[in-house]
Amino acid sequence: MGRWEDNAVGRLQEAALELYSAPGYDKVTVAEISEHAGLTRRTFFRYFSDKREVLFFGAEKLEAFVAEGVLAAPPGTPALEVVATALAAVTRRSDEDPAFADFARRRHALIRTYAELRERELGKLAALAAAAAAALQRRGVADPAASLAAEAGVAAFKVGFERWIDDPRRRRLGHHVHEAMRGLGALALEQVATRSNQKPGPTPRGRR
Amino acid sequence: MGRWEDNAVGRLQEAALELYSAPGYDKVTVAEISEHAGLTRRTFFRYFSDKREVLFFGAEKLEAFVAEGVLAAPPGTPALEVVATALAAVTRRSDEDPAFADFARRRHALIRTYAELRERELGKLAALAAAAAAALQRRGVADPAASLAAEAGVAAFKVGFERWIDDPRRRRLGHHVHEAMRGLGALALEQVATRSNQKPGPTPRGRR
Repeated sequence: MGRWEDNAVGRLQEAALELYSAPGYDKVTVAEISEHAGLTRRTFFRYFSDKREVLFFGAEKLEAFVAEGVLAAPPGTPALEVVATALAAVTRRSDEDPAFADFARRRHALIRTYAELRERELGKLAALAAAAAAALQRRGVADPAASLAAEAGVAAFKVGFERWIDDPRRRRLGHHVHEAMRGLGALALEQVATRSNQKPGPTPRGRR
Repeated sequence: MGRWEDNAVGRLQEAALELYSAPGYDKVTVAEISEHAGLTRRTFFRYFSDKREVLFFGAEKLEAFVAEGVLAAPPGTPALEVVATALAAVTRRSDEDPAFADFARRRHALIRTYAELRERELGKLAALAAAAAAALQRRGVADPAASLAAEAGVAAFKVGFERWIDDPRRRRLGHHVHEAMRGLGALALEQVATRSNQKPGPTPRGRR
């Protein structure tokens, strides 16, 4: 790789963010992004399989990072707490990097605008949940508990992330994700409390 | 609409399911699906905007049905219970229709095989969660609680649905979704119990 390809990923991402905002994601070709970044189409496809992937670079690394976090939790930690802690580590990383917040906000504005990007984002979140669930299983958590903890944890992360994007007070991502995890626990408690107060519970038949 | 278009949606869905299985989703055109169903491309596009949508017909109706269920819950019902009940109504509907189970299994096998279909499915589930969250807000549940209850409820539904697809004992969808909702509550309780047992809790600063 020649020097002229230095930081190719960053340059292509920046070019894509600019051109996807104007003239627009659906109006831009890979050739135009590459040219805007001073690189070739061939270089683009060395790093990204399509026009969407340029906004999702590093998703596999993130999955591995979260899986490692899940595996590193002390034995006996409840499954949902394991997932919450692993996802909190993601927010710490990003809260320490001011450039990340800027990139994430610009990227998320595009994701909200284009259904194709939204679907890809959901696919990445589902893969993240699957990676967390697989790591929980390696810890000995059986299914469906492993999948439930992973999916619910990622769902809370998603809600916290959206709150962070929209927060006019610009509190940290870690704050919003933590609040979302706490909120999920509170909702579950409230539900369980009500169910156990109901006298003649629904019959097993009615439930099945 | 002439008589020859009777049950056009069902015929196009059946044709798509057959051809997407073999020769395969990525090898088939809308023209071929339409021809296989004895209909025209024009008829196809009257009902579906693209090759994927033919497998997701009725998603908007499902969103409206769940939103109605959310709005119909007795006042004071906890948010997560409201969502669980509305989603349980979906499973009852489908458990009463044997043709649905067959269609759902064949459809899901395709969704698991093709990333494009998986992403569209995730988009539909996200739209379902958004509809449930909006209905919760109309009930007076503030955000982030409304979004959290909706996203976590749909996450549990998704896990229950997958378990149903894979169940060698072929228990009903309602059973698996109910078990998933219960499992989510149990996980949250376990987490809350552990957190409240921790003596020197993390400082607010460390948490933010």
